[in-house]
Amino acid sequence: MTRRIHVIGIGAGDPDYVTAQAVAALNDTQVFFVMDKGDAKDELVALRRLICDRFIREPGYRFVTLTDPPRDRVAPDSPTYRKVVADWHAARARVWASAIESELGPDGVGGFLAWGDPSLYDSTLRILEAVAREVDFSYDVIPGVTAIQALTARHRIPLNDVGEPVLITTGRQLRERGLSGSAVVMLDADCAFRHCPPDTRIWWGAYLGTPDEMLVAGTVADVGDQIAQMRTAARERHGWIMDTYLLRPADRT
Amino acid sequence: MTRRIHVIGIGAGDPDYVTAQAVAALNDTQVFFVMDKGDAKDELVALRRLICDRFIREPGYRFVTLTDPPRDRVAPDSPTYRKVVADWHAARARVWASAIESELGPDGVGGFLAWGDPSLYDSTLRILEAVAREVDFSYDVIPGVTAIQALTARHRIPLNDVGEPVLITTGRQLRERGLSGSAVVMLDADCAFRHCPPDTRIWWGAYLGTPDEMLVAGTVADVGDQIAQMRTAARERHGWIMDTYLLRPADRT
Repeated sequence: MTRRIHVIGIGAGDPDYVTAQAVAALNDTQVFFVMDKGDAKDELVALRRLICDRFIREPGYRFVTLTDPPRDRVAPDSPTYRKVVADWHAARARVWASAIESELGPDGVGGFLAWGDPSLYDSTLRILEAVAREVDFSYDVIPGVTAIQALTARHRIPLNDVGEPVLITTGRQLRERGLSGSAVVMLDADCAFRHCPPDTRIWWGAYLGTPDEMLVAGTVADVGDQIAQMRTAARERHGWIMDTYLLRPADRT
Repeated sequence: MTRRIHVIGIGAGDPDYVTAQAVAALNDTQVFFVMDKGDAKDELVALRRLICDRFIREPGYRFVTLTDPPRDRVAPDSPTYRKVVADWHAARARVWASAIESELGPDGVGGFLAWGDPSLYDSTLRILEAVAREVDFSYDVIPGVTAIQALTARHRIPLNDVGEPVLITTGRQLRERGLSGSAVVMLDADCAFRHCPPDTRIWWGAYLGTPDEMLVAGTVADVGDQIAQMRTAARERHGWIMDTYLLRPADRT
């Protein structure tokens, strides 16, 4: 007898992005562990509960909130950034370990819901690997539709040019390294695309797959300012924003 | 009244990767257009039919086979490669246009099933965009779980290092440009990872999500030959192989 944990990718926004495998895992789970982000992302918590309500047939499950340990705020370009992130992950791992031990019986089944897919700019798997060194449980990972697939689907475009690579990157990396080929940018709080050549093409999307979805496509010169304004207004309205975009240099087909 | 087409990502291998949105689109479709690849990929056609059998509640649909136009075989590094691919896509577009016109009534609904997600190394969207310039129809795109998500889920690993980019690329590109950071390699018929430094870490998967799934992880020095041998043997046994892998340079965490 051993505890089991599902790390479940629930897709990027639209509850209809949930897979049959995720539905099975949701129904197998007794305790969903959720992080209390302590900020305005109540809508995101609500969306997770909506997905459980919709897909779980016998609602005997419960939610357990994991309070995030305090985090030193250090700029991503600071030399101590990786250390600070690692310390914070270790503190999180201790919180998770004690929750798993106290909330799950010896053959209990827990779940973590990951926005999009658990592999992409998400710390759940890293933390869980650390927890597994101290607490006895097995775990599996259920893949989900990422915001990248949601973005290209809603724009109805291929991600890559024929036979060409695509970089998945962050706003900070784009600012530091510039653009060399197609790139999908995630985690960009500061419209890093404005540093690209003006004839760079951009396909942008926010709140993908939700009723609040916004899509804009064009060149950075033509639509860059519009995106920046829409982004600011939407973040004020919602209290949060999740957006992503694909860039292609002008010389690509 | 206008014809409609769904381009449906059916996930990478496991029928349980199909999303609720894809199930709705499958059930909305009257005619599924499938390419006759003229080769040994009967198993792939069978998997598509299995997905339809499983998820479509009222089986009034039918399959229409589109015969691929003959294709000039030109090496991907040839200067005429892009032209040859473009010509072949144009010829395909003519075949698809006439099939859509003859097989779908004025308010008919057609579907194309894309392995994984329609945005990734798949020509369906490019061809359909060309067809849409000549035939009147509307279309939408249903995102799916890609082989990349399936790979990381089965290995239970993050795709990216913390805050770092990941390149999605091909075997040919990897050979030409080398490895600089994490990279997922698709469409590699020739084990290009063998050209990477021996301490490069690799997470490899084939037939992901199917009963024939194979997973290997280690350094290129330790498992590279093993992967190459397993790959050759499996391709002989099945007549085809679909595999992908993640590489991380040794200096990454």
